[in-house]
Amino acid sequence: MPQRLLTNARLATLIHGIEAYGLIEDGVLAIDGETIAYSGPATGLPEAFAGFPKEDLGGRLITPGLIDCHTHLVFGGNRAREFEMRLEGATYEEVARAGGGIVSTVKATRDAGEDELLDGALTRADALIAEGVTALEIKSGYGLDRDTELKMLRVARRIGDLRPITVRTTFLGAHAVPADYKDRADAYLEDICLPALEAAHAEGLVDAVDGFCEGIAFSPEQIARVFEKAKGLGLPVKLHAEQLSNLGGTALAASYGALSADHLEYLDEAGVRAMAASGTVAVILPGAFYTLRETQAPPIDLLRLHTVPMALASDCNPGSSPLASLLLTMNMGCTLFRMTPEEALAGVAREAAKALGMTDRGTLETGKRADLAVWNVAHPAELSYRIGFNSLEKRIFGGSE
Amino acid sequence: MPQRLLTNARLATLIHGIEAYGLIEDGVLAIDGETIAYSGPATGLPEAFAGFPKEDLGGRLITPGLIDCHTHLVFGGNRAREFEMRLEGATYEEVARAGGGIVSTVKATRDAGEDELLDGALTRADALIAEGVTALEIKSGYGLDRDTELKMLRVARRIGDLRPITVRTTFLGAHAVPADYKDRADAYLEDICLPALEAAHAEGLVDAVDGFCEGIAFSPEQIARVFEKAKGLGLPVKLHAEQLSNLGGTALAASYGALSADHLEYLDEAGVRAMAASGTVAVILPGAFYTLRETQAPPIDLLRLHTVPMALASDCNPGSSPLASLLLTMNMGCTLFRMTPEEALAGVAREAAKALGMTDRGTLETGKRADLAVWNVAHPAELSYRIGFNSLEKRIFGGSE
Ligand SMILES: [Zn+2]
Ligand SMILES: [Zn+2]
Repeated sequence: MPQRLLTNARLATLIHGIEAYGLIEDGVLAIDGETIAYSGPATGLPEAFAGFPKEDLGGRLITPGLIDCHTHLVFGGNRAREFEMRLEGATYEEVARAGGGIVSTVKATRDAGEDELLDGALTRADALIAEGVTALEIKSGYGLDRDTELKMLRVARRIGDLRPITVRTTFLGAHAVPADYKDRADAYLEDICLPALEAAHAEGLVDAVDGFCEGIAFSPEQIARVFEKAKGLGLPVKLHAEQLSNLGGTALAASYGALSADHLEYLDEAGVRAMAASGTVAVILPGAFYTLRETQAPPIDLLRLHTVPMALASDCNPGSSPLASLLLTMNMGCTLFRMTPEEALAGVAREAAKALGMTDRGTLETGKRADLAVWNVAHPAELSYRIGFNSLEKRIFGGSE
Repeated sequence: MPQRLLTNARLATLIHGIEAYGLIEDGVLAIDGETIAYSGPATGLPEAFAGFPKEDLGGRLITPGLIDCHTHLVFGGNRAREFEMRLEGATYEEVARAGGGIVSTVKATRDAGEDELLDGALTRADALIAEGVTALEIKSGYGLDRDTELKMLRVARRIGDLRPITVRTTFLGAHAVPADYKDRADAYLEDICLPALEAAHAEGLVDAVDGFCEGIAFSPEQIARVFEKAKGLGLPVKLHAEQLSNLGGTALAASYGALSADHLEYLDEAGVRAMAASGTVAVILPGAFYTLRETQAPPIDLLRLHTVPMALASDCNPGSSPLASLLLTMNMGCTLFRMTPEEALAGVAREAAKALGMTDRGTLETGKRADLAVWNVAHPAELSYRIGFNSLEKRIFGGSE
């Protein structure tokens, strides 16, 4: 197992303490195998690690490897033509008549072979990895039939095999009601969604279960059925909630001890309190807010007040957030939602790990997995400040490059 | 001189005609030396070029090389800490007291050696080039003294020597009034700005002359003094105008036959008419609008109505637009200003060339310079639709890679 000593580095440890970012200016980081053996001031390096092979980082910044905790990375086709039609003045109805909207992605995803889906998803995964991402959540939800939901999850698992990153899969059968079940959402859950979840779980394809709680998707009562099934299978849950209206999905999710509630533009203080009580992470998704030109921002101040952990994610998807950059997501979190650069960095590392239920990463602490990103910046605020610029010098995945 | 035949390609020629994007689906492009010898349907390829060495592009899209026609790419330091202070709730006064604002960039730029400025600027130029940029405008304007203005322009020229791109330099001494000339803008013009322009021109460092016409910078009368000097030297002019208020700078610029008027959020119809009459290009800068969280968009509909050409540019600068991506600029032009993807692509190619007074590029026409970008996309709308994702396959600079 490799042993390495990264010297002459700044460390954004993200350990809560008196310094912003848990910043250590004159730091060293020792790696033993896949694990951080020491992370702290050069002056405090234990004798045991002093002999590890040294690499001088020239004052560069080390952060935890970035984590994108909410993506729909696997899908067929793209929606560029729909994007164009809207900008040329087409109505939603005209777009729908032309075959646009989520149904076009469902059709393209059903039609695509597994390798074809993989090829497309890998280009997006590689864009994220190029910016220091070392762990990634990927949802199903464009199949809305059993075989395609399982196909998407298999592709997600293959991304984790083909790239040196950790992939967490999420079953999102309750993403939309397919056309052949129009106005029969309960029948869709009964006939398709819940059996597909069971089958996917039996194949070991599911790390968590998600749903979309919204007027245009599923009611809280319907989501509760999905969550009951997840509970029966011993799977953690999360929820797309309060994006376009306040249906109380967040409180429902919190009552199931959800890992996260995501979007949250219309969340009220009662929902924030419920999250605080259940330890549910708020996953903030500025890419969709930006693309949909929403005006109501999530209640960042209330989340801060009640110390609900805030993660930031790309929501990479072909419709509402064709975004494949976590650095840009950080900038959007700051620019659009007035998060601080420190919150933004914690949001794509420490809190994103929490949102995925991963306790072994997200900070530069002794004993954590050595997933690291090394940056050509003098101060961690630069990561959020720049727009469309990648300062990454290199990545380390579990101790190796 | 190289001869090449790019076959099996889609061509976004950007030639005005019946097809959007001037699109040719089954296209070939012949290069003879630095020049496009043929660009059109495979069926129409003249015999003379049929023997050129063939490269099968597998159906990929060719566009003109992208052109960023408004950047402040050369500067010292960065403003990440100021970005952070603002998000932590600091007032403008507190930021100013902490040494923030443009004065901090002026100080850092004056203090930096030429090589140091070059190193920083090259990282940004390379980010742009990685997305298919083959020509770039770079302004001075962070010196506000003679030596530093000239230093910035020399660095800009060196970027053009070190990279296979074309650099156009712009003298922007009338960017801000330096602290030691506070409330004495006319004296600054007399003592520093106009003599510096003369000196820079004498060294061959100036392709065009720009100014910032705004309450916080220079009045139309003061800008007119700069334009008179430019006219005397035979240099074309352009102007930062109507960004934060309507001072009539655009009409003034048009009266000098300006290449472009830039920003234009507060432009009125009279100004639009003046631009149409003078053939002045509207340079749209969504990065600054996004970063400053402006709410008044430029009058895209009026510009369309009066068929004023619209270019799009990054405005890459350390304060109001730390943006180093022309693809993201295209997405912002569409998402924030409702430009169409076709307008966005023309805006970073055909119209950007016009804004720089370059008649030899910006479209895929016979006789134009063979500056090309080859993309892994099926349709040109994908270039504007994706966010934080680079589909570039390769670039060709004057016929060579
Ligand atoms: Zn989502
Ligand atoms: Zn500018």
